[in-house]
Amino acid sequence: MTSRTSLLLASLLLCSATTLAQPSTQQPEPHAVQIEQPRQVILIIGDGMDEQQITIARNYLRGAAGQLLLDSMPMRAAVQIQTSEEAVDGKPVYVADSANTASTMATGTVTSIGRISTAAGTDQDLTTIAELASAAGMRTGIVTTASVTDATPAAFATHISLRLCEDAATMEDIRYRDIFLGECKSDLKANGGKGSIAEQLAESDVDVILGGGSAHFTPTVEGDSVSTLDLARRNGYEVVSNATELAQASTDKKLLGLFSPGTMPVRLQGEAGREAEAPEPSWLNQLHPYLGSSNLPEPMTCEPNPQFSSVPTLRQMTDAALQHLADANNRGFFLMIESASIDKQSHERKPCGSIGEVEQLEEALDSALAFARTHPHTLIIVTADHAQAAQLIPDESLFAAFPIPVYTPGKLARVITPEGGQMAVNYATNNFFMEEHTGAAVPLFSNSEGVGRIPAFIQQTQIFEITRDYLGI
Amino acid sequence: MTSRTSLLLASLLLCSATTLAQPSTQQPEPHAVQIEQPRQVILIIGDGMDEQQITIARNYLRGAAGQLLLDSMPMRAAVQIQTSEEAVDGKPVYVADSANTASTMATGTVTSIGRISTAAGTDQDLTTIAELASAAGMRTGIVTTASVTDATPAAFATHISLRLCEDAATMEDIRYRDIFLGECKSDLKANGGKGSIAEQLAESDVDVILGGGSAHFTPTVEGDSVSTLDLARRNGYEVVSNATELAQASTDKKLLGLFSPGTMPVRLQGEAGREAEAPEPSWLNQLHPYLGSSNLPEPMTCEPNPQFSSVPTLRQMTDAALQHLADANNRGFFLMIESASIDKQSHERKPCGSIGEVEQLEEALDSALAFARTHPHTLIIVTADHAQAAQLIPDESLFAAFPIPVYTPGKLARVITPEGGQMAVNYATNNFFMEEHTGAAVPLFSNSEGVGRIPAFIQQTQIFEITRDYLGI
Repeated sequence: MTSRTSLLLASLLLCSATTLAQPSTQQPEPHAVQIEQPRQVILIIGDGMDEQQITIARNYLRGAAGQLLLDSMPMRAAVQIQTSEEAVDGKPVYVADSANTASTMATGTVTSIGRISTAAGTDQDLTTIAELASAAGMRTGIVTTASVTDATPAAFATHISLRLCEDAATMEDIRYRDIFLGECKSDLKANGGKGSIAEQLAESDVDVILGGGSAHFTPTVEGDSVSTLDLARRNGYEVVSNATELAQASTDKKLLGLFSPGTMPVRLQGEAGREAEAPEPSWLNQLHPYLGSSNLPEPMTCEPNPQFSSVPTLRQMTDAALQHLADANNRGFFLMIESASIDKQSHERKPCGSIGEVEQLEEALDSALAFARTHPHTLIIVTADHAQAAQLIPDESLFAAFPIPVYTPGKLARVITPEGGQMAVNYATNNFFMEEHTGAAVPLFSNSEGVGRIPAFIQQTQIFEITRDYLGI
Repeated sequence: MTSRTSLLLASLLLCSATTLAQPSTQQPEPHAVQIEQPRQVILIIGDGMDEQQITIARNYLRGAAGQLLLDSMPMRAAVQIQTSEEAVDGKPVYVADSANTASTMATGTVTSIGRISTAAGTDQDLTTIAELASAAGMRTGIVTTASVTDATPAAFATHISLRLCEDAATMEDIRYRDIFLGECKSDLKANGGKGSIAEQLAESDVDVILGGGSAHFTPTVEGDSVSTLDLARRNGYEVVSNATELAQASTDKKLLGLFSPGTMPVRLQGEAGREAEAPEPSWLNQLHPYLGSSNLPEPMTCEPNPQFSSVPTLRQMTDAALQHLADANNRGFFLMIESASIDKQSHERKPCGSIGEVEQLEEALDSALAFARTHPHTLIIVTADHAQAAQLIPDESLFAAFPIPVYTPGKLARVITPEGGQMAVNYATNNFFMEEHTGAAVPLFSNSEGVGRIPAFIQQTQIFEITRDYLGI
C-alpha cells in the first residue's frame, strides 16, 4: 500500500483528469423510464467538502446565522465512503483519496487508493457513468477547477492504474524531488493499455471538458509525433484557453477548454498569501507546558487572489458546459462539475482558499438550479468525495480560565469574518507540509428530483446507481 | 467571556442536570392539532455526536460497509449551531458548549456559553419545552448517562446563570485545584433566585429523572436542614439507585433515579484503560523534522469497562422512562434522552469510550422506535448538540512514500476493529488535558413523523419549535 497511497501525494504536489467515453454494454432500463423529454444529471462534487468545511464557508460567506444555497436544497443525505485495499481480500481502509472515491461515484465499484476507474487487485477497467451515457446517445461533460487530468475528473472518463500518470511524460517514472512515486508502464499503449490520462481524454467521446491542466497536453503522445493537444484536435475537439474563447465556442464540436497549466487559481487567499501558522510558545512554556505563554497567530483577513481574474470562474465554465450540452439535444446529458480546491487549499492549510472555492461551488449550483427550472427532468446532486482536515475550533479555548497556555499542537488560522467575528481554523492531522484527508461520511444534497429517489443514508456506490437509473441507461 | 467559557470546563472536570417544570403561558396550537390520541416527542441527544464520531462508531460496531440503526432513519438534516456572546450585541461565537446548545434546543433561544436556560446579558429565565408540556398537562422525562445536574439535562428543566452550580455547595465559589471557576450568588434563593440545579430538580414537576449525580443531592438545601434528596422525596419523588429498584419503581409517583455519584460509567474502554497517546519521535527527528523516525502508539483493542455493569444501561433507563411516562396517559409526553459521554470521552481522548456510548444511544433509539410502533403519534428526533474533536485519519499517511516521518502533532489512538481493520483516531485541538469542541453543523435524524415536518437544514432553535408544534402546546 505504501507506494499506492503515496501516489495521492504526487498528484497534490505536482498538479492535477477528465473523460473518455468509450462504447460499452448498454444497461437495460431499470424502471422503464419513458423518455419523452431529455433527462440530465448534474453531479457537483466539492472535493473535501465535509461538514466542517461547509460550516466554515457558511460562517464567512453568510454569517453564523446565515444560509448557503446548499442549505436551501430540499433533501440531505449522508454518504458512506469506502476504500478497498489493493489486495481485495485485505482489511478495510478507513480513509480514502479522491481517485478511489471519484472512481466509486463514476463506476459504482469500490476500489483502492490512487486508482482511476480500474479494479483493485485485477486492474480491470470499470465502465463509467459517462461512458454508459455516451453509449446511450446522451452527451457528457466534465468541468473542474483542477487540471482536467486530476483524479476526480479523470475517474469519469479514463482508466489507469495510478492517478499520477496524468500525461505521456509521466508513464514510466514519476518523481518528486528525486523521490520515486510510481509508474504506469502496464498502461502504456505498447503494453496493451490506454495511455496516460491526458491521452485518453484527447481520444475520448466526452463532449465538454473544461478546467486546468494545459501542461499535460504538451507532451508528445506515445507512438506518434503530435502533441496531446493536437491529438485532441485531430479527434474533433475545439480547443479554447480563456473566457472569451469559451464564450464564443461553437456548440457543433466537442469542446476542450484548458485555462491554466495545472490547477486553476483560486478565488480567495489569506492576506498577503498567509496560511495557518503554528502558535509560538514562550521559552518558559517550552520548558514546561504549565508555564509561560504562547502567542497565537495574528488574525487574518481573506482577500481576492489576483491570479483568479485570469481564468473563467466555475460558474462561467458551468454555464458554457450547460449551453453546449443542452443545445439541440433531445436525449439529455450527464455533467460532472468539481470544485477541486476546497480540498487542495485545505491540504495546504489555507482556509480563505477553501472558503472561496465553496463559494464557486455555490455559484455553479445556482447555474444548475436555474437550468433545472427550464429543464424539468434534471436531477442535481451535490456531494463531497471524502472529508478533510480543517476543524473549526474555539477562538478562545473552553479552558481559557486555567492559568496555563492552551493552544493547538497543529497550525491555526484565525480568520476575521465579514460580520466581525473570528473563526479559528485548525489543521492538525500531521506534521508534513500537506494535511491528511479524514474519514467521516460526507453530506449529499439534491434538488426536488432527488426527493424520494435518494435515501437519507447511502453508500458512495449508490451515486452511480441513482444516476444510471435516473438517466434510464 | 473568559470566566464564562471556562465554566464549561469545570463541569467537565468535576463531573455533572434536569428539570423544573413550572407553569407557563400555554401557547396557542399552531396547526390546530386534533389531539385524540396522546402525542409524544422523544428527543435523543448524542452529546458531541458529529459525523466523525458517528463514522468511527459505525466502522467499529458495524464495519466499513455496515449501517447503524441511525442510518435507517428516513430523514436526515443538518443543524446550524449558534452561540451568543454574553453581551448580546457582541460578535458571533463560532463554537458552542453543551449548556448553551441544550438551552437553545430546550427554549428556542440562543444564549451564551455556560448558561442554563437563561438569557445572555439579561439573565432572564427562558421557558423550556418541558415546562410548556407540563403546563399543558403532559408528562415529562429526562434521562442521561451524565449526572442529571449536568448541562444538557439541566437545560430542559432548570434556570441558572452558570452550569457549574450543580448543587447547593457550589453556589458561592467553584474551584478546581484552587483555580476559581465561577459562582451563582445571584441565583441563591436568598437573592431571589431558584437555587442550584439539584435543588431546582428536587422541586420540579418533571415526572421521570434518571441518570448519575447522586453526589449533588447530598448537600443540605439552602435555608433548610434537609438534604437535596430529602427535598426531592418531600416533593413527591420516589428515589431509586440501581437497576432492580428502577425496574420495580411505581408508576404512581414521580421518579428520581440516581445510579452513580457523578457521570455514569461508560460501556467500553481502551485495553487496560488506554487512551490516545502522542507519537514518539526519535532524537534525530527531534533535531530536524525530515530526519529520523517516529513511533506511533501501538494499536489497541476496546474492552468492556468493568464498572459499567454496576449501573443500568441507557436502554434500561429509556425503557423505564417510557413505561412511566406512557402508563395511563391520554395526553402524551416530552422525553429527552442523552448519551452524554460520547462527548466526555472525546474530551479525554478515549475513542473506545465514545464508540460504546454511540452504541448506548443506538439501543435507546431502538427502544424509542419500538415504542413508536405501538404509539403512532410519536415524533423521534436524534441529534447532537455540537461537534467534537476526534478525527478519523489515515492509519498510513497519504504521504507515506516520502522518506520522512509523518505523524500527528496531537494524540493518536489506533483502534483495532472487530472486522480486522485499524482506525487511527486523532485528537489535536489543543495541548491541554481535555480537547476542545468543534464548530461544524451537526446531523439530525427523525422517524417518519419528522418527514415533511423537519426541513433538510434547520437552526438549532427550530428543534424547540418543531417539538412545541408537534405536541400542539
